[in-house]
Amino acid sequence: MSQTHRVLSEHVYNSAVALMEQRGVTVDSIAEIVVFLQEKYVPNLTKEKAVESVHSVLNKREVQNALLTGIQMDILAEKGQLLSPLQEMIDSDESLYGVDEVLSLAIVNLYGSIGFTNYGYVDKLKYGILERLNDKRYGVHTFLDDLVGAIAAAASSRIAHRHRAEEEKAVLATGQV
Amino acid sequence: MSQTHRVLSEHVYNSAVALMEQRGVTVDSIAEIVVFLQEKYVPNLTKEKAVESVHSVLNKREVQNALLTGIQMDILAEKGQLLSPLQEMIDSDESLYGVDEVLSLAIVNLYGSIGFTNYGYVDKLKYGILERLNDKRYGVHTFLDDLVGAIAAAASSRIAHRHRAEEEKAVLATGQV
Amino acid sequence: MSQTHRVLSEHVYNSAVALMEQRGVTVDSIAEIVVFLQEKYVPNLTKEKAVESVHSVLNKREVQNALLTGIQMDILAEKGQLLSPLQEMIDSDESLYGVDEVLSLAIVNLYGSIGFTNYGYVDKLKYGILERLNDKRYGVHTFLDDLVGAIAAAASSRIAHRHRAEEEKAVLATGQV
Amino acid sequence: MSQTHRVLSEHVYNSAVALMEQRGVTVDSIAEIVVFLQEKYVPNLTKEKAVESVHSVLNKREVQNALLTGIQMDILAEKGQLLSPLQEMIDSDESLYGVDEVLSLAIVNLYGSIGFTNYGYVDKLKYGILERLNDKRYGVHTFLDDLVGAIAAAASSRIAHRHRAEEEKAVLATGQV
Repeated sequence: MSQTHRVLSEHVYNSAVALMEQRGVTVDSIAEIVVFLQEKYVPNLTKEKAVESVHSVLNKREVQNALLTGIQMDILAEKGQLLSPLQEMIDSDESLYGVDEVLSLAIVNLYGSIGFTNYGYVDKLKYGILERLNDKRYGVHTFLDDLVGAIAAAASSRIAHRHRAEEEKAVLATGQV
Repeated sequence: MSQTHRVLSEHVYNSAVALMEQRGVTVDSIAEIVVFLQEKYVPNLTKEKAVESVHSVLNKREVQNALLTGIQMDILAEKGQLLSPLQEMIDSDESLYGVDEVLSLAIVNLYGSIGFTNYGYVDKLKYGILERLNDKRYGVHTFLDDLVGAIAAAASSRIAHRHRAEEEKAVLATGQV
Repeated sequence: MSQTHRVLSEHVYNSAVALMEQRGVTVDSIAEIVVFLQEKYVPNLTKEKAVESVHSVLNKREVQNALLTGIQMDILAEKGQLLSPLQEMIDSDESLYGVDEVLSLAIVNLYGSIGFTNYGYVDKLKYGILERLNDKRYGVHTFLDDLVGAIAAAASSRIAHRHRAEEEKAVLATGQV
Repeated sequence: MSQTHRVLSEHVYNSAVALMEQRGVTVDSIAEIVVFLQEKYVPNLTKEKAVESVHSVLNKREVQNALLTGIQMDILAEKGQLLSPLQEMIDSDESLYGVDEVLSLAIVNLYGSIGFTNYGYVDKLKYGILERLNDKRYGVHTFLDDLVGAIAAAASSRIAHRHRAEEEKAVLATGQV
């Protein structure tokens, strides 16, 4: 293993989460979107469970890569350091620029297709932290707002899969009595 | 070209549209979803333009393949002719069964990533014909309801791209005076 | 939890694997493709590790859903029980029919984008069991051949991610001495 | 239409193609990959037809967006101007960094799923210009090499669809005599 070519996984994880927090997004604020999305389907869903699920999503290398790349673009656009016309497209969250959605979908995909509709739904509603990220007065968050929606949708899918497993265990336990 | 191995494109198109209509979905009913999704962004959007855009989406072989495959599954599930547990999963539109969303996303992808959020949004809202398709009393439409939402989202993306082109032409014309 | 609407996860897993084996594909035969794909990158890769990784991929509900759906289509096409022109398209593995690739990509996506190229590569080479699945004399396997390639690509991605984690642990251990 | 918020489509197209050429990739060099991929399936495929198909792919806004974004990342990595650890990951084309493949797949998706395997295949083989792009001595092309493979795969899918249409027309003409 060549040390010059590789970065340690822990460093990638820490950097991605730190960058996200510097840009104003906490794990807690994403967990709030998860609770909003899932509370009608998972009646006993606690904020703690949502936080744990968001952490698990953030642990995936693909998610870290998307965050590092997307936030880097947001920062450069904020500083006006991108080439034209990319600069103008990201700065204004141009409606025909869809690379942010492409990165987001790759996150959702990691937890299967049941998360697609949740992703689209929160993106339209701009729930919670997403409203602030969409307010241009607080900087350029063209990528980050979509990535946060995707992480919330992915964490929701994960909860849905796990909730089913728990329900089944309960049913089987009852059946065995 | 081996005649035994290939089917004529026109036959594929006609079969897909006929099957969709037999299952209660007209081009018009999809165009209504398109108008609902796009009227705030494209002020002068007419129903005719929406119909034209839906026709254009239906003209793509990938869309026809998805319709033929998905509706076939719906019909077989309705007749109880699938193997268990696929039969039960499609018959009940099981929440962890996501092959319908996978086929739908492939349709949305044909027009780029800007359609993802529209797809998720209409799927959650069950607008227009989607409400009826989700009512179990009218048969099994586990695949068709998602495919219709995807076709509407794709047609909306197509309109968004074309609307921009028209706006630009208008601006350029003004600028040249 | 409504018993009529839901199927138990264990039943879904067992059915998917049993169906795959009935159609001539063993876990071992997929693991052979994994070894072929990864042995140049993971020098100490054993067949046992590959088998374990294939099992882990098969444990995902999305993979089971894709297998159940795809093999069902293959079986129905073999019996001539699909509607025309879907029947002819699947029976002949029509080159413009891509629903099999769509389902396969959804499997690869579960382990991130690094598996895409492996999927395309094995599909072209028809390595191992894939050669047999592509021989029309052994029945219709339009879906199954792509799904097997996707499972092998997904298991390879999983090994690549884990191999990195192990390498890093080794480096860190050395560094601490 | 707010002029400050929008960029003209023609400017986006010209910028993307100019940037690609500055980085050493001509339309011709992509067309060569297309011919390599398709000549066994489309016997009378000329270089001119391949060039025309590449131009058509480059005309899609999604493709232009992916090129502008990916090449921007390559240039910044070359100059050492990205944040750590993104800088090291892109500079070394880290094997667990898959955002380049994610952008590429979005291009392939525009022409349907039949292009997936071609994309994976050329990426492994490093045919033509792809060999040069993978040689670190000529700069950082972590994104561009994947994007070029994707554009070639997309152009190949487009040719496959059109070739079929022409074959059918020929058969119908003969049939009518």
